[in-house]
Amino acid sequence: MPRETTTDPRQEILRTSARLFQQQGYDATSMNDIAAALKLSKGGLYHHFQSKDEILFNLMSHAMDITEARVLNPAKAVADPEERLRTLIRLHIGVVLSERDREITVMLHENHPLSPMLRKRINMRKKDYIHFVENLVAEVHRNRGSKGTVTPRAAAFALLGMINWIYQWYKPEGSLQAHNLVPQFTELVLGGILA
Amino acid sequence: MPRETTTDPRQEILRTSARLFQQQGYDATSMNDIAAALKLSKGGLYHHFQSKDEILFNLMSHAMDITEARVLNPAKAVADPEERLRTLIRLHIGVVLSERDREITVMLHENHPLSPMLRKRINMRKKDYIHFVENLVAEVHRNRGSKGTVTPRAAAFALLGMINWIYQWYKPEGSLQAHNLVPQFTELVLGGILA
Repeated sequence: MPRETTTDPRQEILRTSARLFQQQGYDATSMNDIAAALKLSKGGLYHHFQSKDEILFNLMSHAMDITEARVLNPAKAVADPEERLRTLIRLHIGVVLSERDREITVMLHENHPLSPMLRKRINMRKKDYIHFVENLVAEVHRNRGSKGTVTPRAAAFALLGMINWIYQWYKPEGSLQAHNLVPQFTELVLGGILA
Repeated sequence: MPRETTTDPRQEILRTSARLFQQQGYDATSMNDIAAALKLSKGGLYHHFQSKDEILFNLMSHAMDITEARVLNPAKAVADPEERLRTLIRLHIGVVLSERDREITVMLHENHPLSPMLRKRINMRKKDYIHFVENLVAEVHRNRGSKGTVTPRAAAFALLGMINWIYQWYKPEGSLQAHNLVPQFTELVLGGILA
């Protein structure tokens, strides 16, 4: 079955919500707007999600699922640390540049109100990702006998900043696309962070 | 007169609005909330700003004023290109880490609804800054006879991404502060972008 025809109603609700949040803003989007866009009755929507907060939390969780499935797990399968880092950079940029993933994963970086308990659960998953990158940089540092003064932690934040900032400037019609962005950012990281 | 005692009412309105937008979200903050926080009558607030949109636009303009006054203009005064780039990195990180500036300048990076005409005016000022960084990187490239394959445009986006992403992870009580972050990010940029 082709992937585009998925009929998991929760997935469809999350995807449509993400698009509406992007188009008209999170706060300006009501549960009614979401139900209407999906041609669902209000009861039909509430059957799946009790509140917009619950949709936002599930959207952010889904974004972390995407990051784990498309970036983290394939990277973990690469044995050589430097190759693992190159793979992570390439796959993470790929998720940001993918139109389908981008509308979901961009939600991770927006400052919408979430209850402290739900916020904490998302932040813990984000921190796991940051620590993976930090440990990976440390491993490459050691293997290379790097003499640089950039710590793995600062390097991890710099790397994630470069990649996650792409959401702010990327244009599908622009000259910077995966084929030239991936090698440039990879050179930048390997040349600068691991100097 | 010490700077903290400024009594320009428009400045005070913008600063208080920025704080409320951060604390409770842009959409969840009403003109009434802003007036109440300032102990102003509603008429007193509307005398200065007709709408929340107008406050948001002026807040973003003020953030660009801060960036120009604290980063761009002092950097422009530095004759040597590489020293100019180092200065820009140091001063830009300084603005992001400054508690007083941060609550204003973070607004530049949030995706709040602004009318297309006002959005365009802010975006033009942002683009001017990006172009300054891009041209500066190109100048340092030329002076160094750099053989790297990272273009000045990709390098400028990477540099701004690293620095502007600091808003997402910086903690005043954390171990990464200006004194260690500035040299690390500078080394990263000069080692990687200009390799």
